[in-house]
Amino acid sequence: MNILDVIAKKRDNQKLTKEEIEFFVNEYTKGNITDYQAAALVMAIYINGMDDEETVALTIAMANSGEMLDLSMFGKNVVDKHSTGGVGDKISLILLPIIASLDVPVAKMSGRGLGFTGGTIDKIESIPGYNASIDVDEFIENVKKTGISLIGQTMNLAPADKKLYALRDTISCVANISLIASSIMSKKIAAGANKIVLDVTCGSGAFMKTEKEAVILSKKMIELGRLANRETVCVITNMDEPLGYAVGNNLEVIEAIESLNGNMPKDVEEVILELGAYMLKLAGISDNIEKNKEMIIESIQSKKAFNKFKQLVQNQGGDISYVDDISKFEKAKYIIPVTANKAGYIKSLNAEKVGRISGDLGAGRIKKEDKIDETVGIVLVKKVSDKVEKNDILAYIHANDEEKGKQAQIELLNNYEIVEQKVEPQKTIIEIVK
Amino acid sequence: MNILDVIAKKRDNQKLTKEEIEFFVNEYTKGNITDYQAAALVMAIYINGMDDEETVALTIAMANSGEMLDLSMFGKNVVDKHSTGGVGDKISLILLPIIASLDVPVAKMSGRGLGFTGGTIDKIESIPGYNASIDVDEFIENVKKTGISLIGQTMNLAPADKKLYALRDTISCVANISLIASSIMSKKIAAGANKIVLDVTCGSGAFMKTEKEAVILSKKMIELGRLANRETVCVITNMDEPLGYAVGNNLEVIEAIESLNGNMPKDVEEVILELGAYMLKLAGISDNIEKNKEMIIESIQSKKAFNKFKQLVQNQGGDISYVDDISKFEKAKYIIPVTANKAGYIKSLNAEKVGRISGDLGAGRIKKEDKIDETVGIVLVKKVSDKVEKNDILAYIHANDEEKGKQAQIELLNNYEIVEQKVEPQKTIIEIVK
Repeated sequence: MNILDVIAKKRDNQKLTKEEIEFFVNEYTKGNITDYQAAALVMAIYINGMDDEETVALTIAMANSGEMLDLSMFGKNVVDKHSTGGVGDKISLILLPIIASLDVPVAKMSGRGLGFTGGTIDKIESIPGYNASIDVDEFIENVKKTGISLIGQTMNLAPADKKLYALRDTISCVANISLIASSIMSKKIAAGANKIVLDVTCGSGAFMKTEKEAVILSKKMIELGRLANRETVCVITNMDEPLGYAVGNNLEVIEAIESLNGNMPKDVEEVILELGAYMLKLAGISDNIEKNKEMIIESIQSKKAFNKFKQLVQNQGGDISYVDDISKFEKAKYIIPVTANKAGYIKSLNAEKVGRISGDLGAGRIKKEDKIDETVGIVLVKKVSDKVEKNDILAYIHANDEEKGKQAQIELLNNYEIVEQKVEPQKTIIEIVK
Repeated sequence: MNILDVIAKKRDNQKLTKEEIEFFVNEYTKGNITDYQAAALVMAIYINGMDDEETVALTIAMANSGEMLDLSMFGKNVVDKHSTGGVGDKISLILLPIIASLDVPVAKMSGRGLGFTGGTIDKIESIPGYNASIDVDEFIENVKKTGISLIGQTMNLAPADKKLYALRDTISCVANISLIASSIMSKKIAAGANKIVLDVTCGSGAFMKTEKEAVILSKKMIELGRLANRETVCVITNMDEPLGYAVGNNLEVIEAIESLNGNMPKDVEEVILELGAYMLKLAGISDNIEKNKEMIIESIQSKKAFNKFKQLVQNQGGDISYVDDISKFEKAKYIIPVTANKAGYIKSLNAEKVGRISGDLGAGRIKKEDKIDETVGIVLVKKVSDKVEKNDILAYIHANDEEKGKQAQIELLNNYEIVEQKVEPQKTIIEIVK
């Protein structure tokens, strides 16, 4: 097989065979196909598209390109969740202990992520002592023992996806449904799940800006899941404003701990209940979504979920006194209030901009090597539809650099759109696609 | 300006501005844009196309990307010729001395070329002593003194084209009319011509397989010439069978010398007369094509052209005794006849295959560093429409390796299609596009 023929075929809008796609993925991973050849093929795929058979072949080939996490010892219904990304997204930190507390094994390898804030792993590492780099055997042992473990990607999962994603980023080929869907699904398959619940975020702070795009991506991933024998459900959630109130690393951990203590922001709760209920369904606990939601609420009220979180932290060397007393978390040097310059109702609070402001404060990383500042970020006080008076506090900036903090203060204020007319609250759960 | 935005624009089938194209060409030449970014953009151009304005912007930007040969001292009508490539194409070796003998200055920088046989420079270097690497000052001096010089590309002409062409070759993006046209025209513009006659070859041994494609390419190049203020004429010629009888390096030089001595194969003569007449027209000698053809015939019959060729060789240090006595040229070790296995008429003689067989004997190069074998190749005896009896000699293989020679003998015989019915000779000049 010859890469020139494969490129020419997709260039001429023909369908690639499974063998051709496997050849490309394997040889590209090995370095026998160059980046410029891959770039040409990816652009041809971007423009001319791939059908479902091609997309599933790409997904499986990428999943098989490196190590595969074997979770079969936990049965046929190992369920994983994944979010397509957003601002203030601390759902995994809250949801995973809830699920584990309901006797569904949670063996989660999570990314660190580039972007405005760290990934789930970066966040949980703000609990002193937490070790997200334990080896796979200990990881599996923890799940067997206590039903939960959460670590970083210590294995070489789907390296083809990693390589291809980095390339797509440099050649304006990220925003393609087939490529996004196969990237997400290949990672989930390599991470050992056979049941997948996807939080497909939608809005200004998400990759998919409109509900229509989110539905198309969801349908594509469900179809890929079906063809790859991984039952998949997508919950489309609103990411037009940030999720919850905290944006930043230890700020989000604090909000997650408070949530597990029953003080959960309403939008966070809606997402937790919906995603959780479907995870329980796919895990074979019960097909009754309403009943599953009640189980989740009970798990929180009874502190079962909170205790499971503590167990997770303790298992991995984290200092649980922080979980018991959130005032112990290190704080940023400057906590600067942002106050309303007029009265009215909050009409919008662009999530992407909130994320960018938080990133500028040091909460995120641009390059893999960048160090994250755990303490900085934003704590919102007012969100969309809230009524405010002039001089009311809208939010707090948490900064370690006074200049940056003041800059963030100005930018965040500008990002609050305040109008005279009453504003309806935004819908959090937009649609379930299954 | 940002390459990601430029790529995204063409990816989405939008028109690029002159500034965007210049930015791409300049930064790619400097190495500030990577090969994979260029590959993505080129694929997007291949699939979504460029209009004439974009194509001329690319052409001019590539022409300006390196040194430019200044031939303005030779007036406003400096004419150049170029062939889109074929098998047995020795036209430049014959035509340039003819034109120079008619008082039109010929200052020609020519390529070495990759492929089945060498380029014009490789061929003329088979005359011992010929120096194709003299510097530009001496080159200009020779033209001033004797009206002709022919050298290799000693200057860094259109490096962007060189880089982009090499890239296109590795990503299945060669066969695109706009890209081919701008590649050819950028080199001609950088090489100093302001009038251009193009031999657009067409058929099995050419890049353009059909007359239709050749006409489209011709029209595109003429339009580019018009927009870039370079009057251009295209002569579409047949390359379904090889041109003339000799295929190989010194074999073609011998045929060129014989042609200048008046023993010109009919198809070669037709191409010489047509291209030459238009070169004389563009050079301002006369608008009368028929009269120009007569001038050319007279130049050959009177030996003016032959003597001009000798002068060219002598000027550049070549041994003119080889021109006077072609038997002095070194011969291959094995000269193996190919004989007809049945009687009939030659129906076809696929030029590309003849070229490939010649290349396998060692006449061409695949990589820039490869050494060309000057003596090997093929001398045809019978061509399309010729009548043959069984055991008639069809051609001679010139080989330095007996095994390769025998292999070539079998392959060349298989490449002769002999039928019972009479076959009409092929048309050599297919169309003039101006």
